[in-house]
Amino acid sequence: MGQLKPTKPLSGFIELLPVQQRCFDECAERMQQVLKTAGFSRLDLPAIERAEVLTDKDNWDEIETQMFMFQKGDTKMGLRYDGTVGLARYVSGHLNDLIFPFRAYQFARNYRGERPQKGRYREFYQMDLDILGINELSTNYDAEIVAVLARAYESCREFIGGINIRIGSRPFWNAFFEWLGLSEKQSRAVFVLIDKKDKLDDFNGALTEEIGDKAVEIINVFSNGYKSFLNKSIKLDLAINEIDEFIKQLEVLGIKNAKIDLGIMRGHAYYTGLVFEFFLDNFPSIGAVGGGGRYEDLTGKFSKTKIIGVGAAVGFSRMMVALFEDDKIKLDKFESPIIVSVLPMDENAVPFTMSILTQLRAANIVTIPYLDTGKKFKNKIEFADKIKSKFSIIIGEDEVNSNMLTIKDMMTGEQQKLSLESVINILKKIK
Amino acid sequence: MGQLKPTKPLSGFIELLPVQQRCFDECAERMQQVLKTAGFSRLDLPAIERAEVLTDKDNWDEIETQMFMFQKGDTKMGLRYDGTVGLARYVSGHLNDLIFPFRAYQFARNYRGERPQKGRYREFYQMDLDILGINELSTNYDAEIVAVLARAYESCREFIGGINIRIGSRPFWNAFFEWLGLSEKQSRAVFVLIDKKDKLDDFNGALTEEIGDKAVEIINVFSNGYKSFLNKSIKLDLAINEIDEFIKQLEVLGIKNAKIDLGIMRGHAYYTGLVFEFFLDNFPSIGAVGGGGRYEDLTGKFSKTKIIGVGAAVGFSRMMVALFEDDKIKLDKFESPIIVSVLPMDENAVPFTMSILTQLRAANIVTIPYLDTGKKFKNKIEFADKIKSKFSIIIGEDEVNSNMLTIKDMMTGEQQKLSLESVINILKKIK
Repeated sequence: MGQLKPTKPLSGFIELLPVQQRCFDECAERMQQVLKTAGFSRLDLPAIERAEVLTDKDNWDEIETQMFMFQKGDTKMGLRYDGTVGLARYVSGHLNDLIFPFRAYQFARNYRGERPQKGRYREFYQMDLDILGINELSTNYDAEIVAVLARAYESCREFIGGINIRIGSRPFWNAFFEWLGLSEKQSRAVFVLIDKKDKLDDFNGALTEEIGDKAVEIINVFSNGYKSFLNKSIKLDLAINEIDEFIKQLEVLGIKNAKIDLGIMRGHAYYTGLVFEFFLDNFPSIGAVGGGGRYEDLTGKFSKTKIIGVGAAVGFSRMMVALFEDDKIKLDKFESPIIVSVLPMDENAVPFTMSILTQLRAANIVTIPYLDTGKKFKNKIEFADKIKSKFSIIIGEDEVNSNMLTIKDMMTGEQQKLSLESVINILKKIK
Repeated sequence: MGQLKPTKPLSGFIELLPVQQRCFDECAERMQQVLKTAGFSRLDLPAIERAEVLTDKDNWDEIETQMFMFQKGDTKMGLRYDGTVGLARYVSGHLNDLIFPFRAYQFARNYRGERPQKGRYREFYQMDLDILGINELSTNYDAEIVAVLARAYESCREFIGGINIRIGSRPFWNAFFEWLGLSEKQSRAVFVLIDKKDKLDDFNGALTEEIGDKAVEIINVFSNGYKSFLNKSIKLDLAINEIDEFIKQLEVLGIKNAKIDLGIMRGHAYYTGLVFEFFLDNFPSIGAVGGGGRYEDLTGKFSKTKIIGVGAAVGFSRMMVALFEDDKIKLDKFESPIIVSVLPMDENAVPFTMSILTQLRAANIVTIPYLDTGKKFKNKIEFADKIKSKFSIIIGEDEVNSNMLTIKDMMTGEQQKLSLESVINILKKIK
């Protein structure tokens, strides 16, 4: 026999234990249920796309570092890094099959080829949700999507705690930079500084270096609040008004934990309107666990039809794994979903056990049998104990002959002899 | 603007419309629910594995043709082609974290790099289920896993129809070849011929070419039945007895649609015991939609601990897409899951609409609003119609002032003015 192969997954890849996986799946399921109730259709797009769909760049060395790329025949292709590229392609190819405004979500694996760092994975689940309109799309949908997403996180409150939302505005900054008289180059530089604000040692100094005295006004936005800039320009007034209206709409939608934070920029170039980020109340150090905003052109590279959208993404794996790593989620509830184990005493008891098993499962009772009948009784009951099944049913000659079951409460040790019907009635009520 | 990018997915990749996706998801969910009720834990393993985990081969040209491979730093890696490699690695790395017999399932995407053909995809969902024991595992579990899988297919009967099961036996053929006195080379050749039996023009001729007169006995197995070979050798008797016992066990488990078909071989080299395949009653031309069997050594390459298992795989994408392609599944039921659309008449009605929307969704009623209030009334009602929402609620000044809702049955055209509470009570009952 040669050397044994490695059993650890590759670095940057996530692999959970069954108990964590159950919690992961439960949260994923609850969030998706909220999206379905809001009428979002699930899309499950290929994880592999043509290279030209994934990128506009020509620098293959760099692209191959950032992504997982491969070539088959003449076709270069690679693993997607987010849900947006595939969505843009899909929607452009199905303009006549879909009804607009079209609402879709994806809960899918995405891939990054770079060297992994703490909290950044090479393979991760992201939940993307988008509402798309042809040529137009009311900003009312922006408020709706924030409310839907808030409700999605809320559905997992018992595991992840509460969330709070910060709202930023691209139109505000565009109007502000224009009012300040910044050049396009200066605007871009300031945009990047604001985006990185919390990571900079000397934000004010960096700003002053870029735009001199005008830095003071930017700093005033954060110290005096955006409303102090009313009546400076029509565009600024419009942007400020849009922010205020948005907060009001969120309140009508039952969202009270949103606040304006004009430091929220969302790096992506394609956002054009309001942007937003979600944070966990109890674990702010994880950073944003989701966010999104409005964009004016989703599909320009695929279609002449103009698609406007508002979308958001949840960094689902990142959030869950961060919570698992520091034991921030109590997993008791997921320790075992097994209601009952059935334990035949010997091979003669197997047919009766199989028939009991079939009927318990038909009643939707999660049941596991222990069928290595040659093992000692001790091993059988230990198995029932280790898998944390709530009850066990021991099946021996007596049970086969009497057609009655001995059921044991694994917590209290209490035993009862009952008919299958009574057993089913009891176990059906156990959650 | 440059040339538009292609909107079709790469060949060999599956992309569904929302209505098909809902059916796909519903079937996947039902099948997984059956596995959970049978106590199988879901594992969600990385799609990317080290090359050395994926293959023992050294011929990289060939491997890169068959798989999607890439290199990062010094590490060669690739996309998995089935669930078994990852399972073997995972289980070997978690021997102390898992309780044996360990039952796990995967519902995951797998990848094949070869040129796609009809019915063979480059990316596809496969559902793998396995029961694993350390050093030993009763063959009782073989019957259980077939029964669980049968029940999983049955849970989708209204979409895919009924299934039938064919049981083969590796021990039977091993004993048979030994009794016939075939060399190892002959045995291997005959094994391959039996595996391809239905695809060969002249099975008998091919057999005779390999093993001369002895071919007659092989053909007798298929014409006279395996039981006619009782009392030829102890090993054959044992194998025949195992088959008969298995069928009896399946009957106790409520499985009546299984029959012996010794032509079922299952290509994979690692099977060592009984093997089985599942077929759709109504669509036999699709071929096997799943199958599996017993194997004696899952983890030899990863661990010194011997893991014995019985496992099965469902070719889920292949089955569903074949059914979709020829319109073999009625999708009516999945046309629209939208219960009600809420249509504000103008911008003034939006806050009230948002509040109604929130309350309807809180009651788990699938609700979509149409928030482009500037559009004509005709557009709004057309939207409700196109998305096939079962009801619509039109919200104008009257509704806002009276706090009463006008609800329209989109099928009958009937309208009623009701309180929100009454609306919720009605809509909650709609499925």
